[in-house]
Amino acid sequence: MAHLGAEIAGIGPGTVTIRLPFRPELTQQHGYFHGGSTAAIADAAGGYAGSTLMPDNSSVLTVEFKLNLLNPAQGDCLEAVGRVIKPGRTLTISQIDVWSLSGDRRVHVATGVQTLICVPQNTA
Amino acid sequence: MAHLGAEIAGIGPGTVTIRLPFRPELTQQHGYFHGGSTAAIADAAGGYAGSTLMPDNSSVLTVEFKLNLLNPAQGDCLEAVGRVIKPGRTLTISQIDVWSLSGDRRVHVATGVQTLICVPQNTA
Amino acid sequence: MAHLGAEIAGIGPGTVTIRLPFRPELTQQHGYFHGGSTAAIADAAGGYAGSTLMPDNSSVLTVEFKLNLLNPAQGDCLEAVGRVIKPGRTLTISQIDVWSLSGDRRVHVATGVQTLICVPQNTA
Amino acid sequence: MAHLGAEIAGIGPGTVTIRLPFRPELTQQHGYFHGGSTAAIADAAGGYAGSTLMPDNSSVLTVEFKLNLLNPAQGDCLEAVGRVIKPGRTLTISQIDVWSLSGDRRVHVATGVQTLICVPQNTA
Repeated sequence: MAHLGAEIAGIGPGTVTIRLPFRPELTQQHGYFHGGSTAAIADAAGGYAGSTLMPDNSSVLTVEFKLNLLNPAQGDCLEAVGRVIKPGRTLTISQIDVWSLSGDRRVHVATGVQTLICVPQNTA
Repeated sequence: MAHLGAEIAGIGPGTVTIRLPFRPELTQQHGYFHGGSTAAIADAAGGYAGSTLMPDNSSVLTVEFKLNLLNPAQGDCLEAVGRVIKPGRTLTISQIDVWSLSGDRRVHVATGVQTLICVPQNTA
Repeated sequence: MAHLGAEIAGIGPGTVTIRLPFRPELTQQHGYFHGGSTAAIADAAGGYAGSTLMPDNSSVLTVEFKLNLLNPAQGDCLEAVGRVIKPGRTLTISQIDVWSLSGDRRVHVATGVQTLICVPQNTA
Repeated sequence: MAHLGAEIAGIGPGTVTIRLPFRPELTQQHGYFHGGSTAAIADAAGGYAGSTLMPDNSSVLTVEFKLNLLNPAQGDCLEAVGRVIKPGRTLTISQIDVWSLSGDRRVHVATGVQTLICVPQNTA
């Protein structure tokens, strides 16, 4: 996340928001954020959201995620929102959504669902 | 891809291989490649694989992809292989797999399926 | 759907609800609805939701869907809700959710995302 | 499965084949097998494949699956093949593929990836 220049913009029980400001090196040929950047912050937002509901001495790992890319990811920054749909002792399911922000304009860039597993720290 | 330091290691009709050498800034807390890096090169390999079967005056866009993370992504480099399962005039489906390479050792890091759409260049 | 005994319980622009009453032959060893039944009505609800926004002389086909099974599918009936997230001339994306109903109790059984394609009728 | 008329056509360590003969009530408007039937036997084949590698006193549950529908599901019967990609003590990942068979013709109807969880029998 540091490599991308992303930062946590909001955090609460079961929900985390991550923002990624526009940087030329994150864009592809048409001036859009690359799909990999969108996926990276979506995955991170969902994983952090899950970790807010897990014990302190545990790690969260992504088992899998699916992401539909809905609109071009262009603008001043990307905002990824992870929200736990189903918490669990072993598995947690998060919804992940990404928006692009340009001034007042907010466009839905991606949506998906992620499966997380909680791993006790000492076995991670 | 340039930002990540990835390079195309192989290309043929309907199949593309991308390699991403280890770099400390791409890793997370445990010294593994970050899930975002894995997703980025998987998405790119599948998209490039699809584009090898599309007309010259067209662009490829990812509609969606799903990725299961099978093993920790650690090693000297990551190798993503995209392979077209079903080409089509409008939609193309690729299988995407990522391997981690450490000397002679090759570990299956991620597998998934991706849906691509072919967009005529002048409307992209 | 007729084979399963499912019926449309609600329909509006971009959203469709399907109900599937409990029947012993749809259940698996533990008295739960089988995962196949859950997937079938989720797929149908998302597809019908998409078709409400498509031209009359067209068909809708499912390109792909992903479904996370959140809780056991047991109760008096299953209710699947399809809701279009992103309509499009060629591709439409629907969110699909399934609930189990037992008297007043409503449990979230499954959630997922579906990609649909609109096919002009004469080429279907 | 019995309700659909499906049967196990092959079983080995980590791989299971299920066949579903054509029946008029499983088809949709165009004479194709319904997507729900395809999903049901794909999910079952992957789950059974996973269960061949799990302890006797355990149950298998589907956590999630993703399915891309590649070609119309028409013919004499459908054949679903589940194959374990990554076995695990808690989670197992299966690849799931469905083929339609018409005389000598074999068409790839669907492909996807499934996440399974192994549940000790006494807590199921």
